[in-house]
Amino acid sequence: MSQRYKVTLAYDGTNFAGYQVQPRQRTVEAVLTKVVNQIAKNPVPAIAVFGSGRTDAGVHAHGQVVHFDLPKRIPAPNLLLALNSMFPLDMLAKEVVEVDDDFHARFSTHGKRYRYVVSNTQFVDPFKRNYTGHYKYPLNVDLIQQALPDLIGTHDFTSFVASGSQAKSNVRTIYDITVQENPAAHEVTFEFYGSGFLYNQVRIMVATLLEVGNGRRLPDSLPDVLAAKDRERARETAPASGLYLETVDYENNVENSELS
Amino acid sequence: MSQRYKVTLAYDGTNFAGYQVQPRQRTVEAVLTKVVNQIAKNPVPAIAVFGSGRTDAGVHAHGQVVHFDLPKRIPAPNLLLALNSMFPLDMLAKEVVEVDDDFHARFSTHGKRYRYVVSNTQFVDPFKRNYTGHYKYPLNVDLIQQALPDLIGTHDFTSFVASGSQAKSNVRTIYDITVQENPAAHEVTFEFYGSGFLYNQVRIMVATLLEVGNGRRLPDSLPDVLAAKDRERARETAPASGLYLETVDYENNVENSELS
Repeated sequence: MSQRYKVTLAYDGTNFAGYQVQPRQRTVEAVLTKVVNQIAKNPVPAIAVFGSGRTDAGVHAHGQVVHFDLPKRIPAPNLLLALNSMFPLDMLAKEVVEVDDDFHARFSTHGKRYRYVVSNTQFVDPFKRNYTGHYKYPLNVDLIQQALPDLIGTHDFTSFVASGSQAKSNVRTIYDITVQENPAAHEVTFEFYGSGFLYNQVRIMVATLLEVGNGRRLPDSLPDVLAAKDRERARETAPASGLYLETVDYENNVENSELS
Repeated sequence: MSQRYKVTLAYDGTNFAGYQVQPRQRTVEAVLTKVVNQIAKNPVPAIAVFGSGRTDAGVHAHGQVVHFDLPKRIPAPNLLLALNSMFPLDMLAKEVVEVDDDFHARFSTHGKRYRYVVSNTQFVDPFKRNYTGHYKYPLNVDLIQQALPDLIGTHDFTSFVASGSQAKSNVRTIYDITVQENPAAHEVTFEFYGSGFLYNQVRIMVATLLEVGNGRRLPDSLPDVLAAKDRERARETAPASGLYLETVDYENNVENSELS
């Protein structure tokens, strides 16, 4: 009897060409699929791995969730050890749970939490170049705070989706957005919690909110941008390096953070 | 009239083959020398850059210090801007100061401070793989604390120097060593402050102190190791990824930290 597993993953996205398999590219899905099949002694047909969603090249994860079925059951602690023994150092399995066959890493999601960290300095700290987005212009976080309520709730986010999106609908619900300044680290951190996000949506929202913080856009201008349903109205996309998939929520677990 | 400059540098050592120029390798000295000569419009003879000392491949710096002479004076703030505009992203000039011709980045040093950060987890956090040394065995920091006083002071550190050292004398003075546990981050951090350090000395001392913390060596065993003057007695070298050159001190500045 096969057994389904839910695995929570962290990865440093710097040296991955994103989550999804692509020909001749090093991707999280490709590395993970290879390791899982090796652990199961390369069965035929091969085991497929299902992620909660894609992350782009350079985007990081503290809590990406995937599922797969093993032909023979392995106790969860042993599987956690086997995965981490075989993973490259920029990938880590944080938790392995045996789940029922009706669990699906993508279709069972209730919410996702993303974090975006901005380095607000003239030149970027060498140690943060791959782990923050860099914005060198002055930021007034109060202005950003004023704009946030207009993005929270259920909206058509067509103005905030990249052209490559294959979503049937651009309507999504954002439960909460926060922004916090860390003056000692010269950082501004956003958190986005929502039902799900469109292709590049978080990075486009961040770029737009940074323009608000710099005074290039008015804090009350976002309802017009949403209503326009026009990607040209938001324009910029913040760099991948600042984005972290923090948690993916499922029924019966409101927050699966703090795993390690 | 030429003008001498003292520059404080940060660099992420991950993608450098160390500080010192080596044929066909990307080193800090090589990148820096090229940029400085470009800024000065490639004079003949070329401008040479002098560092406070070498750091190995993978070793980081928050406060490496170098000096060089420009044939024509450039105001310090302009030079800081020029350097950072031309540096790769894994290198940053934190401070530029005009100094007298008798200042020498290497020969004028009064002390150096190194930090070593250990990840004490079974598997290394993907985000720390290049920025900490990994030690997976249990550590008792109290045992390490007991051993530290025996390393502080003036000693012949022959037992703690790598075979490649070209130093004439292995006698050095360590002013202070501290160790701190950060349980939330699963990290143990060492700080070493001394007159100067031999090749790999800090990394060999860290590896030895970790053996003390794990109970593989007794806390009172280090005087014997020092007295033996035999590299075979210390044996291990902690990974380069955990080591940071924090500050280099000169006369009239006891601590040149907190530059940025």
